[in-house]
Amino acid sequence: MPRNNTTLIALDWGTSSLRAWLFDRNGDVLDTRATDMGILHLPEGGFPAALQTVTEGWVTASTPILACGMIGSRNGWREVPYLDCPVSVADIAQAIDRAADIAIVPGLRVGGAFSDVMRGEEAQVVGALAVRPSLADGAVMILPGTHSKWAHVSSGRIVSFRTYMTGELFAVLTRHSILGRLPSDCESPESARDEAFARGVLAAREPEASLSAHLFSTRSLVLNDRLEPGAARDYLSGLLIGDEVRSGTGLLATQRDASTVLIGEPALTARYAKAFTLLGHHAPETLGNTAAAGLLNLARAAGLLET
Amino acid sequence: MPRNNTTLIALDWGTSSLRAWLFDRNGDVLDTRATDMGILHLPEGGFPAALQTVTEGWVTASTPILACGMIGSRNGWREVPYLDCPVSVADIAQAIDRAADIAIVPGLRVGGAFSDVMRGEEAQVVGALAVRPSLADGAVMILPGTHSKWAHVSSGRIVSFRTYMTGELFAVLTRHSILGRLPSDCESPESARDEAFARGVLAAREPEASLSAHLFSTRSLVLNDRLEPGAARDYLSGLLIGDEVRSGTGLLATQRDASTVLIGEPALTARYAKAFTLLGHHAPETLGNTAAAGLLNLARAAGLLET
Repeated sequence: MPRNNTTLIALDWGTSSLRAWLFDRNGDVLDTRATDMGILHLPEGGFPAALQTVTEGWVTASTPILACGMIGSRNGWREVPYLDCPVSVADIAQAIDRAADIAIVPGLRVGGAFSDVMRGEEAQVVGALAVRPSLADGAVMILPGTHSKWAHVSSGRIVSFRTYMTGELFAVLTRHSILGRLPSDCESPESARDEAFARGVLAAREPEASLSAHLFSTRSLVLNDRLEPGAARDYLSGLLIGDEVRSGTGLLATQRDASTVLIGEPALTARYAKAFTLLGHHAPETLGNTAAAGLLNLARAAGLLET
Repeated sequence: MPRNNTTLIALDWGTSSLRAWLFDRNGDVLDTRATDMGILHLPEGGFPAALQTVTEGWVTASTPILACGMIGSRNGWREVPYLDCPVSVADIAQAIDRAADIAIVPGLRVGGAFSDVMRGEEAQVVGALAVRPSLADGAVMILPGTHSKWAHVSSGRIVSFRTYMTGELFAVLTRHSILGRLPSDCESPESARDEAFARGVLAAREPEASLSAHLFSTRSLVLNDRLEPGAARDYLSGLLIGDEVRSGTGLLATQRDASTVLIGEPALTARYAKAFTLLGHHAPETLGNTAAAGLLNLARAAGLLET
């Protein structure tokens, strides 16, 4: 690998994982790495060693490093204050903390009664704007994950966003609640699992029943032989994603002229697209993970790159 | 204790706890015990030993034993099939499984698309009907807990019910999710905790926002200095109870002539009563735990008692 051709090391450093990209001078990715060295998995003071491991063979003294995610939180390497919405890409770039060798992107905040926070997803929003510049005119960007974000972009600014705990609820309920103790020797065939997912999505249409009641139905339906135990996880996934899409599309119905786009890993965005269709909406365009493009763009806007 | 005066040993044997009552011939409680010997806490084949421990000094050959709860489930001592709603007290009494020395009350089931199940709470419903016979004419009985039940009683029958995972969601979220990792050295003063509970209840009024989004606000509000970390658990409790009461009162609005009654431990029913008031409803009458009264009544109706 020609080291003198490298221009940026970008890191998405979250709670449970650390992903790294090495860019060349043309903005193309030369190499990429994914590890489980998220901030919660590291010993105290373990950040420099983790950085050295993930960038092994990449680093030269002159290659700038830009990171986003929980690495900038109170429990991260250096706390970088949240930036209040609405914000433009230039605002975020200007607020990058460059106090040390590793520069850190600030998280974003929505103030007021509907307080919300993000750390890391802002890079994906910026990346989506780089990949599809027309989204700057008006878009709702949906970033499924542990803490799913629905971000509203208008006139080139991130106006506000809302977080759903969809991914984490699925994880804690299947690992730690009675819903994870359903009798199941094996997974059901794919057709049965697809059908269970669809049933979950459609059940979530009725908000009066409350998500908390719908969740318990995962158990009752299995006990009443109306749901295969091997498809219960898919039903639960459908309930949670369906509830998120129901709520998100309802809240964002006022942004009718905005494009809607799903950003993330294909397996997950495909589930969301299916939920949109089942609930009577057009399936949004889907983009892959745009964090790398976003970090490159922010580094450029901040003047971090060698010229 | 005059053993020849005893008439029934009643057990509420659930997932995490085992409660026992000894009744005299007048139907008065002579003694009561509470242990953590729930079915999930016992080794395989450990039921007889647990029964012996909890009834130490109580048992005579002729004292009948009646149990309700998860002890009658697939993972319990003996599986007793669910009884389909609507059911009367007489129906439940008739379906008691008397195949062995310990008789077991059947759980109840609601079939169809809104499948639901209960095991144990049926004894509390029967107990409430024994304590307040007028409730048989029409009532919504709310039994807060790990899996809260809202049971609709009409013309002396349990017509249907719905389960909310309120208690278990609170437990898994505070123990296993990011909401349990909020920085907190100590609990806030009671007034701040009461206020946080009320804020949670009121936030849950807006179903469009989804419970999953409200849950995350527990974290955002703390990070944005709009909620004391030491009151975050109360805010979360308010969100979950508020969402349950919002949904339950909405669904049951069609039963306007029914009495509404809260059944359970005073500390918990008081929180629910407060949520009712905050959401603009009259606070329901509250009853204590009525499981013992229910088991006595079922034993009588089943002809289990010595005459």
